[in-house]
Amino acid sequence: MNIIEIIEKKKNKQALSEAEIAFFVDGICTGSIADYQASALLMAICLNGMTAAETAILTDKMAHSGDTLDLTALSPTADKHSTGGVGDKTSLIVAPIAAACGVNIAKMSGRGLGHTGGTIDKLESIPGFRTTISENDFLEQVKNIGIAIVAQSKNLVPADKILYALRDVTGTVESIPLIASSIMSKKLAAGADVIELDVKVGSGAFMKTPQEARELAAAMVDIGKKNGRKTAALITDMDEPLGTHIGNTLEIKEVIATLNGGGAEDLRTLCLGLAANIIALAENIEKESARRLAEEALRSGKALEKFKQMVAAQGGNVRYIENPALFEEAAFAHPIAASQSGYIQKTDAQRIGETAALLGAGRQKMEDSIDFAAGIILEKKCGEYVAAGDTIATLYTNQKESLAPAAERFLSALTIGKTSPQKPPLIQGEVL
Amino acid sequence: MNIIEIIEKKKNKQALSEAEIAFFVDGICTGSIADYQASALLMAICLNGMTAAETAILTDKMAHSGDTLDLTALSPTADKHSTGGVGDKTSLIVAPIAAACGVNIAKMSGRGLGHTGGTIDKLESIPGFRTTISENDFLEQVKNIGIAIVAQSKNLVPADKILYALRDVTGTVESIPLIASSIMSKKLAAGADVIELDVKVGSGAFMKTPQEARELAAAMVDIGKKNGRKTAALITDMDEPLGTHIGNTLEIKEVIATLNGGGAEDLRTLCLGLAANIIALAENIEKESARRLAEEALRSGKALEKFKQMVAAQGGNVRYIENPALFEEAAFAHPIAASQSGYIQKTDAQRIGETAALLGAGRQKMEDSIDFAAGIILEKKCGEYVAAGDTIATLYTNQKESLAPAAERFLSALTIGKTSPQKPPLIQGEVL
Repeated sequence: MNIIEIIEKKKNKQALSEAEIAFFVDGICTGSIADYQASALLMAICLNGMTAAETAILTDKMAHSGDTLDLTALSPTADKHSTGGVGDKTSLIVAPIAAACGVNIAKMSGRGLGHTGGTIDKLESIPGFRTTISENDFLEQVKNIGIAIVAQSKNLVPADKILYALRDVTGTVESIPLIASSIMSKKLAAGADVIELDVKVGSGAFMKTPQEARELAAAMVDIGKKNGRKTAALITDMDEPLGTHIGNTLEIKEVIATLNGGGAEDLRTLCLGLAANIIALAENIEKESARRLAEEALRSGKALEKFKQMVAAQGGNVRYIENPALFEEAAFAHPIAASQSGYIQKTDAQRIGETAALLGAGRQKMEDSIDFAAGIILEKKCGEYVAAGDTIATLYTNQKESLAPAAERFLSALTIGKTSPQKPPLIQGEVL
Repeated sequence: MNIIEIIEKKKNKQALSEAEIAFFVDGICTGSIADYQASALLMAICLNGMTAAETAILTDKMAHSGDTLDLTALSPTADKHSTGGVGDKTSLIVAPIAAACGVNIAKMSGRGLGHTGGTIDKLESIPGFRTTISENDFLEQVKNIGIAIVAQSKNLVPADKILYALRDVTGTVESIPLIASSIMSKKLAAGADVIELDVKVGSGAFMKTPQEARELAAAMVDIGKKNGRKTAALITDMDEPLGTHIGNTLEIKEVIATLNGGGAEDLRTLCLGLAANIIALAENIEKESARRLAEEALRSGKALEKFKQMVAAQGGNVRYIENPALFEEAAFAHPIAASQSGYIQKTDAQRIGETAALLGAGRQKMEDSIDFAAGIILEKKCGEYVAAGDTIATLYTNQKESLAPAAERFLSALTIGKTSPQKPPLIQGEVL
């Protein structure tokens, strides 16, 4: 087999065979295929696409390029993935709800680059919480308490690390088959029976239009099913941030509030929707029954209890969960006042994410450190009425000099008008 | 400026600006753009194309990536390029005809990989002939006798060397803008006022269909004109070899025969057509007058005289031109007899080229040596009637063991049938 012939085949809009895709994935891992050949093929895939069958095979070969986890002994197991957005802390609420309903959650998460940290960064803002534990301890913990969330092992899907680094510098990021295979290869390698996807759409999301989001969701669900996993996706709004808290410690506080029965309505609704899907798929029951189970886990405090069990098992200080006032607060808090009266027409998620980044909540490069306490609390969300002078939000940071540019960026995210706006629905679609 | 944005622009089917194209060509030469980024852009160009304006700019920037020749003092000057075929020795006939008619030929040619050598290899089969001379001596020779053909200088269009090497291993060879800019950048750098192109089409050519050939010809003529050169192209048949002699010394012998008023009719016709175009463009005269001048240069022996002057000026032994029997013959000659009576329906140029390569007439890698005496003389061409047992061709080589596989390959090129075949016309079109 010859990589040039494979590139030419895709250039000529032909589908690649399983053997050709395996040759490619193997070649990029061993280095027998040069990066300039890989990038030429990636561009051809961007422009000429891949069939659903090709995409499923690519994902499977990538998933098997490194370590894979065998969770069959723990069945039913579930995993969850969000394509990412501002204020998205759903995993930390959905996972304990599902675990409280008998679905085992053995989840590996990323740190992630961007406006705020990833799930792992958020967990690490709980004093003592360990996100790197041995595979044995990880599986043992799931067996004992039904839930564990840890950092991705170093050798999880090395093919994706190589391809992602190359795509990032060759203009080949935007491609449904490549995005779908990148996400799903890690989910397949992580071994859960059920994969629930949350595909974000809107200004703060990678997918800017509902059609793109629907295409990506369909591609990912198809990959999961073709590889024998129960897979479903929700397509959900990311025009405005999810919930009210943005930033690592602040988001943990909102997680605790939600598990205590409070929290913002949009966050609570989405978490129950995702948890219901997981429970329905894992237990083979009707969605309505699953939803009642999820609501009951939240109402009864069982989900909170699961969260506390996980924090304790992974070395975290449970007192912080019981009394969130213990979390260290940022040195500087800066309220943002409404300059005029009216309805909030728009709180642009992208710009609010950038505001959080300016405050120190995220990282640009993997070696950057994160200010866990930095972030934003939204006092008013899109659609609410404010009077001039009302506090719309409060910015938090330990770097005083960041407040002025962050406040300016925040205000650029905001539109206040005379009429009540038409907000896009929170849940815009479902792919089963 | 940022190469990733440039790649994404082309990926999104947008035209690149002059500054962006200059940034790319400069970046591949200095190494500031990685080869994996260059190959991604090349694939995007293959699939999304380039406008005529972009292609002309790319060619100009490539042409100026290294040394360029200033021939203005020698005006009118002309250059000629063939996209390559089997038995194509036209440059060595057209150049002396044009020079005999007062058009200065300061030509740089390639060695080339393939079935037989390039123009430079053919010239080097004349004992003593020097193809590497200083730029000063080169220009002085043209000033004195109106003709010089030398090997390309090392620093001619380095951007093309880099891009070509990359295209060769990334499945990005086939692309009209990339092929056209590769050829024309070298012609622009070489400095002639007039550029005459011979775009081959058929089994032995790179372009397999008339439409592809016409597209390439149009793209190249457009590049030449946009860059201020008088440019024209003929589209000519390469389904069967050109003329009767294939191989380096053998082709020189056919050149001499043609300059003496003999030679195969197709070769003579094409050479006169190309020379007439050059003379018409260079002297701003009607094609019919130019054609009469070309015919007269051949008939009078003035073209042969120019060829001899060039050979003498570049150190070659002119006695070989006067008496071609002096050329060393191959140790082994092997006639191929017709196995049946009938019309030759096809002498597939591609396979006859492969036969010549098996006999030792070409090279696979630049460091391979060439057997100058190896090659083929066609006794019968496509369309002629043969009786069973007639000699169709003779194979020549110094490697006896190559005769059997070469004879087998030659026979696979041949179709003999009952009816006289419909041959494609020699000159299939013209782009002005």
